[in-house]
Amino acid sequence: MKTLTKEIWMDVPRRRQIISIHHEVEQLVTESGVHEGIVLVNAMHITASVFINDNESGLHHDYELWLEKLAPEKPHSQYRHNGYEDNADAHMKRQVMGREVVVAITEGKLHLGPWEHIFYYEFDGKRRKRLLVKIIGE
Amino acid sequence: MKTLTKEIWMDVPRRRQIISIHHEVEQLVTESGVHEGIVLVNAMHITASVFINDNESGLHHDYELWLEKLAPEKPHSQYRHNGYEDNADAHMKRQVMGREVVVAITEGKLHLGPWEHIFYYEFDGKRRKRLLVKIIGE
Amino acid sequence: MKTLTKEIWMDVPRRRQIISIHHEVEQLVTESGVHEGIVLVNAMHITASVFINDNESGLHHDYELWLEKLAPEKPHSQYRHNGYEDNADAHMKRQVMGREVVVAITEGKLHLGPWEHIFYYEFDGKRRKRLLVKIIGE
Repeated sequence: MKTLTKEIWMDVPRRRQIISIHHEVEQLVTESGVHEGIVLVNAMHITASVFINDNESGLHHDYELWLEKLAPEKPHSQYRHNGYEDNADAHMKRQVMGREVVVAITEGKLHLGPWEHIFYYEFDGKRRKRLLVKIIGE
Repeated sequence: MKTLTKEIWMDVPRRRQIISIHHEVEQLVTESGVHEGIVLVNAMHITASVFINDNESGLHHDYELWLEKLAPEKPHSQYRHNGYEDNADAHMKRQVMGREVVVAITEGKLHLGPWEHIFYYEFDGKRRKRLLVKIIGE
Repeated sequence: MKTLTKEIWMDVPRRRQIISIHHEVEQLVTESGVHEGIVLVNAMHITASVFINDNESGLHHDYELWLEKLAPEKPHSQYRHNGYEDNADAHMKRQVMGREVVVAITEGKLHLGPWEHIFYYEFDGKRRKRLLVKIIGE
């Protein structure tokens, strides 16, 4: 079995931000030398998601409004978690969008449909954040 | 390590449709010869989900109404993604239901609870669609 | 390849209940002897979730109110699934929170961010329930 493990740090200047991590994951799959296997990509923060969807800015804007409707940030006082914090909404938005994705590796490449694109979605940023890529296979 | 990779194409005549893929996945696990491992089953489209829940038509009807309440299809103009498209809601519904499932394989079979059943859920059909089954183990 | 498979049964006295399973999963990873690999942790019931988030009781209270707003339990008659049952809402809440998590194992340990904690979330309890831990790696 071959494995590759990589933590990737990113600057996340805004509170909420969608960041493409597609090419980084693609490169790590190549670097791993794994021909058949899987790659796990997950947020290492509990206010963030890794998800696969369209690389289209209009949709990303729509996600922002939609998630704010499902789990509004304000008023902060509506959440019991927000005694010392103001990020309870971020813990909810992350559950809707998911913590992780698992993607097949076939013949040495990410095995994806034509529009599948891998993103990190931070809901409580303004600081450095990280995600984990774990590849196993042979 | 043994692996099996299979894309499965399906006709999806309706815009939104739940399709059982349970027996296909079961057969592929048998075919793979993997005794201990995992199977990844994922939609290859970004407007669709693979999920595990009850094989009960009343619940599937309830999902339809519930998802339409959480992320209404119409009016199409409410979403910025819908400049040339009309499927922004499908990209949202898919996030609620999830892109993929990972299921254990134990003693050569899917290791599931008694009511767990694997489905594909399309939110923007009316054409042929596909999903991916990737099995790894030994 | 090494594998470990373990079903864990729990008493779940309340209808809805969040139960930490973090230490059990941690111990099984140690017991497995796997140094590099992944662990799949999933509910074996279709009215329950396994998820990773904060070990903070205020947030758990917020989840309860939030999920009840997204998919209210009552009136039971609003769901077609509730002919003989009263748990349609539980099948929806579980989809928001997810069925499973997949976590990396690195150098023999769960590879998690500092606040990531693994929970089982039951939405239709009052009886014994179980989850599955499947470890693969080497």
